[in-house]
Amino acid sequence: MVKAAVLGATGYAGAELVRLLSGHPDTEIVYLASHSYAGKKFSDIYPGMRSAVDMVLSEDSIEAAASVADVVFLALPAGIASKSVTEDILSKAKIIDLGADFRLHDKDTYETWYNVEHFGEKLLGEAVYGLPEIHREKIRGKRLVANPGCYTTCSILTLYPLIKSGLVDTGSVIIDALSGTTGAGRSEKTTSLFCEVNETVKAYGVANHRHTPEIEQELSEAAGAAIHVQFTPHLIPMNRGILATCYARLREGVTDEDVAAAYSMYDGEKFIRLVDTPPETRYVKGTNTVDIGYRIDHRTGNIIAMGAIDNLVKGAAGQAVQNMNILFSLDEAEGLSVASASTF
Amino acid sequence: MVKAAVLGATGYAGAELVRLLSGHPDTEIVYLASHSYAGKKFSDIYPGMRSAVDMVLSEDSIEAAASVADVVFLALPAGIASKSVTEDILSKAKIIDLGADFRLHDKDTYETWYNVEHFGEKLLGEAVYGLPEIHREKIRGKRLVANPGCYTTCSILTLYPLIKSGLVDTGSVIIDALSGTTGAGRSEKTTSLFCEVNETVKAYGVANHRHTPEIEQELSEAAGAAIHVQFTPHLIPMNRGILATCYARLREGVTDEDVAAAYSMYDGEKFIRLVDTPPETRYVKGTNTVDIGYRIDHRTGNIIAMGAIDNLVKGAAGQAVQNMNILFSLDEAEGLSVASASTF
Amino acid sequence: MVKAAVLGATGYAGAELVRLLSGHPDTEIVYLASHSYAGKKFSDIYPGMRSAVDMVLSEDSIEAAASVADVVFLALPAGIASKSVTEDILSKAKIIDLGADFRLHDKDTYETWYNVEHFGEKLLGEAVYGLPEIHREKIRGKRLVANPGCYTTCSILTLYPLIKSGLVDTGSVIIDALSGTTGAGRSEKTTSLFCEVNETVKAYGVANHRHTPEIEQELSEAAGAAIHVQFTPHLIPMNRGILATCYARLREGVTDEDVAAAYSMYDGEKFIRLVDTPPETRYVKGTNTVDIGYRIDHRTGNIIAMGAIDNLVKGAAGQAVQNMNILFSLDEAEGLSVASASTF
Amino acid sequence: MVKAAVLGATGYAGAELVRLLSGHPDTEIVYLASHSYAGKKFSDIYPGMRSAVDMVLSEDSIEAAASVADVVFLALPAGIASKSVTEDILSKAKIIDLGADFRLHDKDTYETWYNVEHFGEKLLGEAVYGLPEIHREKIRGKRLVANPGCYTTCSILTLYPLIKSGLVDTGSVIIDALSGTTGAGRSEKTTSLFCEVNETVKAYGVANHRHTPEIEQELSEAAGAAIHVQFTPHLIPMNRGILATCYARLREGVTDEDVAAAYSMYDGEKFIRLVDTPPETRYVKGTNTVDIGYRIDHRTGNIIAMGAIDNLVKGAAGQAVQNMNILFSLDEAEGLSVASASTF
Repeated sequence: MVKAAVLGATGYAGAELVRLLSGHPDTEIVYLASHSYAGKKFSDIYPGMRSAVDMVLSEDSIEAAASVADVVFLALPAGIASKSVTEDILSKAKIIDLGADFRLHDKDTYETWYNVEHFGEKLLGEAVYGLPEIHREKIRGKRLVANPGCYTTCSILTLYPLIKSGLVDTGSVIIDALSGTTGAGRSEKTTSLFCEVNETVKAYGVANHRHTPEIEQELSEAAGAAIHVQFTPHLIPMNRGILATCYARLREGVTDEDVAAAYSMYDGEKFIRLVDTPPETRYVKGTNTVDIGYRIDHRTGNIIAMGAIDNLVKGAAGQAVQNMNILFSLDEAEGLSVASASTF
Repeated sequence: MVKAAVLGATGYAGAELVRLLSGHPDTEIVYLASHSYAGKKFSDIYPGMRSAVDMVLSEDSIEAAASVADVVFLALPAGIASKSVTEDILSKAKIIDLGADFRLHDKDTYETWYNVEHFGEKLLGEAVYGLPEIHREKIRGKRLVANPGCYTTCSILTLYPLIKSGLVDTGSVIIDALSGTTGAGRSEKTTSLFCEVNETVKAYGVANHRHTPEIEQELSEAAGAAIHVQFTPHLIPMNRGILATCYARLREGVTDEDVAAAYSMYDGEKFIRLVDTPPETRYVKGTNTVDIGYRIDHRTGNIIAMGAIDNLVKGAAGQAVQNMNILFSLDEAEGLSVASASTF
Repeated sequence: MVKAAVLGATGYAGAELVRLLSGHPDTEIVYLASHSYAGKKFSDIYPGMRSAVDMVLSEDSIEAAASVADVVFLALPAGIASKSVTEDILSKAKIIDLGADFRLHDKDTYETWYNVEHFGEKLLGEAVYGLPEIHREKIRGKRLVANPGCYTTCSILTLYPLIKSGLVDTGSVIIDALSGTTGAGRSEKTTSLFCEVNETVKAYGVANHRHTPEIEQELSEAAGAAIHVQFTPHLIPMNRGILATCYARLREGVTDEDVAAAYSMYDGEKFIRLVDTPPETRYVKGTNTVDIGYRIDHRTGNIIAMGAIDNLVKGAAGQAVQNMNILFSLDEAEGLSVASASTF
Repeated sequence: MVKAAVLGATGYAGAELVRLLSGHPDTEIVYLASHSYAGKKFSDIYPGMRSAVDMVLSEDSIEAAASVADVVFLALPAGIASKSVTEDILSKAKIIDLGADFRLHDKDTYETWYNVEHFGEKLLGEAVYGLPEIHREKIRGKRLVANPGCYTTCSILTLYPLIKSGLVDTGSVIIDALSGTTGAGRSEKTTSLFCEVNETVKAYGVANHRHTPEIEQELSEAAGAAIHVQFTPHLIPMNRGILATCYARLREGVTDEDVAAAYSMYDGEKFIRLVDTPPETRYVKGTNTVDIGYRIDHRTGNIIAMGAIDNLVKGAAGQAVQNMNILFSLDEAEGLSVASASTF
């Protein structure tokens, strides 16, 4: 049994992680912490988990967590992990960070986009970007996994084959993404109130959303050259789900077969389904699956590639479990749903 | 392995049943039928199940189903099951009917409320009303189970202890219930369109909803005398869930302890949680659990008892699986979630 | 032109009032205040009003408001109005209080249910309960109007004819009400977040909601004797609207004609429509209309009377404008919609 | 008083038009028709309009309509208007067609994208594309106005200044649009059911949506050369509203001032507001207003221009009224809201 701890257990991503870990056959939850609700039972905050997870929440302490757990999941605001993950901590437990602190290889890029000082520069080289479908082999044996962001997971996996295979003009990439409101987190903000989100839609973070450099880092690696992408997220009135509609200009002479061949890199991937109609978020709700579909528009010369994930599962907690499974040599899909989630 | 067949597999209750059966460790789906989509794959209609359930749908045939399955689930419109379930069918397979045809013991009551002729009168005596928390022992060994309705499951379980223990005036029972829109089914009706349901609420079936006699039958049995209830359902803009707010006048001298003692009849029930705040439907979403809470109002002399279920699980498909588990001597909770569902 | 001021202009009821006043042909907004957003423009907070209401918000000051306005609307938390409305203020401007401070005639009842000290006892006798369909003549000429609550407006108007005409057992009244989430206000609370309200439903304030004594006060007056009601509100996932489903036991011998005759008291009321199907909240959205329907259930001996309003219009801002129209001898419907709102 | 008739009065666009016309001070509704509900009262179908519009619906007849009305609005499926609008009809009444039949100047383009034969080719030259902010002067005095589509109105008005001023690479235009579900119409389709739309999002009509040629026609006219755009609509779970997020590559040397100057073409337009934050659909709900905002991304070289409208008002019925106002020399904004709609 893998002993697991979660810091930030009562945010939406943290709570989803607790839900998944509680149903994972080879994991035991040994420590849960929440800054806001320390002293209460987890099931007081998430009553749906009554009788399933009644553990009392501690005040966040990575030291306490690392001393009792084999793996510590961090679901904390930007800037905290970079300060608290140390060599000492890593000598005691593996760390899977659901936050952004170790995702970007470059400290300056991090500080520019996040406007927070980074205190863990020397660990940046050790951290692995935990996107298994791209970096599976690099993840094995690591001590520190930077679990990717939600928009980034969806965007990178949708576009990667096109970039990697050199089929599109790398200067033309536009990612127009839609997210359910769990993506805005559980903090008390007027903009997250029911009546401010329901029956409306808006873009936000236009030209400056923090997931941009993360997408660019990974797609640049795929391209073998630095590329910029235009990324625009929108908030829509639903709880869960991300849909990324991605546009790129096809290079001259690229055929439908070339595109199909590029996406065949995902053959055998348990959590990726290529679909022949535009993907819908409900079909991946509650699962760790990415549905990807594309349409080549010969009239305009563009390809429109669309990806759908559950932002809290493949976009956060599920991918974290997938990374844990890899780190501990378990079946990569253990404790995760591929396809059985309800879709309405 | 129990071999299972589902007729009416593409309605909401049927599809939820397929979802549950596909994840049940001791069940194998051997036959799926759908009048509307015969010839297509189940996963064409519910693409979230791609790779999980790709079986081709047959035209509804109870004979074909019974010849290959140990248990046949019927999720069909009123009036069909009473015609098609025969002695011959029952000699081949057990039947769990998610529809209403065998729920009412009295043919005339059925015909009055449903306005449909009943063709299976002689089987009415054999059929058992499949509410395990009340009739568990009667269900064992039966061939024909009438799976209760969604409103009825919630209402009966919420009120049963009060009636059974004689704590309330049986003439005073009012059930005000709210249902998510999967309760209206998947048929193409203007009244079920998104823009006709979203951002509004209404009562329907006021004083004449078909679940009324079913609730009265079971509560009368508990009371040991015929009782009438006032039942008013409402349609609300969400997908899943039923909340029943039930009112009854406490008999004189009834104490808080008497009420607590009455509800203690559910001690040990895996799928019933007594909660001390008003139950919310999201906390039982995707599970087979009933959350029940109550408030005694000494000022008015009433008790307000509230129950919450997922209409498609405990209110339909989950309870059907629970009944199957009983019929086939499996663990009653196998393949069913108690508490691990996501609540947002 | 009536010069109008609004304190608490950026809460939902306040903002709706600003919207209505800005379109009212005989009103000029001369002062708007908001504790949270003083110094900003109203249209910064409600950008839909850009170019329509760009007035800068003041810090709440009833003195400043009363010195420039003919009528001051208060949309403030409980306990503030009772302190700030004075003889001096009333000598300068009429006050329409959308809060609860002057609704209950009895100081003790107020303090018991609201758990707040009342500082304006001597004005309780002067204040009029501003429900025009019941107290129209008493409102005329008054200086201080207590604008009724949302649940109370809907519940009282739905039940009043039955109680007034003595058709029902006054000890049997149950009000089961559903409210959209604007009813919870615009303050930053976890329980009002989109993902905590969407796709779920719950009762709250069971047996102790503050609107109870207000309903009882008015219905007792109608009955000519003190009566208690059982009132249970529920929060549902939509922005606007209240539906009250009210139950009462019909006195023996009461006929359908008696009931029709009782409701005929509303003949000629511009804002009340008797409807023959269960009312829906969408049909009154944005209007000051109350839709009322009822069903007599001879089987059970109960009447089920249902009322629907827009909680922010007839349940707050619209009724406040209606009261203003009465106070200033304008057409009672001026600036208010009866029927033209969009219903989807 | 302008006498108005509406064919297709019970679809969502038609009903919204009836709502607007019923509140228009210089219009009298003289004829309403509905194929589905002929013989019923309009307010039977839209009970929110009880007492406001109780007219009985006729079977659709353009002849009957033209014989009693000054203007006939058509809100009919593609292919019907091109057959029924004749010289004779036009000699009796002005026609404002909310459908697509007269929007495209080229018959072949129409038939290719709509897959319907066009019977009114000779009227294509007479019809004017009724987008007042672009073609106001051409509309005056016309007999036949082709009212633009919802996506097209929003997309064209958002991009027009950039194209007209030559600021962007015309080959780079991408329009990623989101629509509320009234956009899918009121017909009974499984895909429009509440439970199929709620809590999910998807693209549709990728690379082949019928609004594409309409956008291209108008933007090509602005560019002075044929251009293609990539247009991708998405269906989102809300009733009303369209948000178009438009991307284009800025030509070299284009400055922020150039862009501001281009958009200044809308100075004085009553129904266009330039906003400095990303527009939200709720801020234009119920109004005829277009909110347009943009962000120049110097890092990528792109401009992101965003437009928001109410699809049923500026995207259909409101614009039709605006066109009627122009045709009959009324104030262009009469009967239309600019800013006073409620935004929650």
